[in-house]
Amino acid sequence: MATISFSFLNSLSPHRIIKKNDASSWGLVVKDLAKINTSTSVGVIRTTFLKPKMMLNKLETYPYTVPGLGLGGVLKDEFVFQQKFHIRSYEVGPDKKITAETLMSLLQETALNHLKTIGVWVDGLGLTREMCNKKLIWVAAKQEVVVDRYPIWGDVIQINTWKGAYGKIGMCSNWAFYDDKTGDILLRASSILVMMNEETRRLSKFPDEVRGELNRHFTYTTPPTVKEETRKWSTRDRSTEDHIRTGLTPTWSDLDMNQHVNNMKYAGWIIESVPRSIVKNYELASMTLEYSRECRMGDVLQSRTYVMGIDTCKLADYDHVDCEHVIQLESTSDEIMKAWTTWRSKKGNRLE
Amino acid sequence: MATISFSFLNSLSPHRIIKKNDASSWGLVVKDLAKINTSTSVGVIRTTFLKPKMMLNKLETYPYTVPGLGLGGVLKDEFVFQQKFHIRSYEVGPDKKITAETLMSLLQETALNHLKTIGVWVDGLGLTREMCNKKLIWVAAKQEVVVDRYPIWGDVIQINTWKGAYGKIGMCSNWAFYDDKTGDILLRASSILVMMNEETRRLSKFPDEVRGELNRHFTYTTPPTVKEETRKWSTRDRSTEDHIRTGLTPTWSDLDMNQHVNNMKYAGWIIESVPRSIVKNYELASMTLEYSRECRMGDVLQSRTYVMGIDTCKLADYDHVDCEHVIQLESTSDEIMKAWTTWRSKKGNRLE
Repeated sequence: MATISFSFLNSLSPHRIIKKNDASSWGLVVKDLAKINTSTSVGVIRTTFLKPKMMLNKLETYPYTVPGLGLGGVLKDEFVFQQKFHIRSYEVGPDKKITAETLMSLLQETALNHLKTIGVWVDGLGLTREMCNKKLIWVAAKQEVVVDRYPIWGDVIQINTWKGAYGKIGMCSNWAFYDDKTGDILLRASSILVMMNEETRRLSKFPDEVRGELNRHFTYTTPPTVKEETRKWSTRDRSTEDHIRTGLTPTWSDLDMNQHVNNMKYAGWIIESVPRSIVKNYELASMTLEYSRECRMGDVLQSRTYVMGIDTCKLADYDHVDCEHVIQLESTSDEIMKAWTTWRSKKGNRLE
Repeated sequence: MATISFSFLNSLSPHRIIKKNDASSWGLVVKDLAKINTSTSVGVIRTTFLKPKMMLNKLETYPYTVPGLGLGGVLKDEFVFQQKFHIRSYEVGPDKKITAETLMSLLQETALNHLKTIGVWVDGLGLTREMCNKKLIWVAAKQEVVVDRYPIWGDVIQINTWKGAYGKIGMCSNWAFYDDKTGDILLRASSILVMMNEETRRLSKFPDEVRGELNRHFTYTTPPTVKEETRKWSTRDRSTEDHIRTGLTPTWSDLDMNQHVNNMKYAGWIIESVPRSIVKNYELASMTLEYSRECRMGDVLQSRTYVMGIDTCKLADYDHVDCEHVIQLESTSDEIMKAWTTWRSKKGNRLE
């Protein structure tokens, strides 16, 4: 075993320029054989490091450390949870801005970390002790998001989130995203979460015992982040829509820790049926999502978009575009969710 | 405008327990109206904060700050780039471990941040000045990953990555993931990247000018992370496979900044055709991915898995399972990629 050769590229048939004799120089020729020990197993041939712990010295000073980046914490007012995020390359889309899915994921992440930090979380996705006792889980009923400016890869953003009671039936979560460098607000969002019995799959009232666990963490004085979207579902003939994306199916990796399709997927599915001319020329300025029923592994979905009152052939004439959307089961047309979105032109026109 | 009411839930027809009169208590009743100013626009009704910058005091001390979390940097040896990551809730799957897609994403993120940090990056996804001049882009040819232990949500991991030349045709990237708390190694990976002409879509040799830009950042002395997977594609009759997932389609959010389907999607698609009994009872111990051709928006794909030499009805009898996989175009059966995976039983048996 003079060298560890990587002579596999001969199997890479479409890449004919790769010759087998190139393979000895992966840039990985091992000069100090004492450092490694190769063990072979059935199916997995691996190189084991003799030094099992970190083989490289720790970096003493990070040239690009961001102060305060971490798991987040609750502010002095005891109600607002704050966490910073560094936007990663795979969280941005082809336009280099964070995707709608990432945006929804960050809402989830901070809401959950908030519950974790205040210590009411016992199990699952944000379940309190009393929720576990009563077999209740959180279900998103409605989400509203307004984006002023999208962060891009490499940006550091600060997210503040706080919660309140939603009447007698649930909880409202609020968020504000800020540019960590300038302090400018980037995004505001609000969600309503209600409770469902995990076994019967029926919605439940918010029991006093659960309210008792959460109440002291609810704030009633912090301003709301997003005002209600007052538009109602249009009365247009829905059989006439021409923007449909069929055959959408949740994958294994779309499931969350509750074995449910992650909420963040829905935002992506909505965009799937938006005409490409809109996705390319406009950016999503706001969305309102209303969840109707659960989506499960094995469901085949359709995403339908109704572009409101414009001629999509004359996009240059519009500063913004409004759309209605439905995600439904392909087999029965049962509605999984509906949504409204507003898109603003990328030409620099901002809705005011 | 006495309060900002959120009276929209009456439209939430499937949630009949939500009454309209609940809506005045989103937990968001604004007591200090001086703080807000509601402006109405076409399509977007929003609440504007009079104080445009961050409305809340910054957290002075983060109770859960992780030292060294940030954008990463190059170690003193000048070859190894190191970055820490805090695993987020949406990066883990139903088994609470990071998904194969997240794993692949972190490989990409650190490889790109490495190029960014050493200053050879000019544009796109890791393109140097000479690559831009010659209209060359990076293309992954092969990736190998061996997972010893999966990080879970909330874990902080340290990723080290370093690069070397791959013969005359490309670059090899290597990674090691460590548990930041214990220093234990979690994962090792290696990739071969070759160059493609962006216009002709043909593979290209590694030009001397590009080599000149990168060479001083290549290391030839650091041990390899993963030894070659020597198995060859089996000769079994491929018409007999019974694990097929049809109708896989890239979505808009699967595209990267180059408008190509992100590599990380492939790992997810492979798992889609692995029998659920394997996905549930085993964890992915290693994978070898060989990329054959580009996948583009609009392609409809099939994922096929061949479980090697075991009876899937008797899973309890096996410590590990080997699989072969193909991702191909549904229309022409043209191969997009092939792969080998090894799965180890979740009962605690570890392959040695």
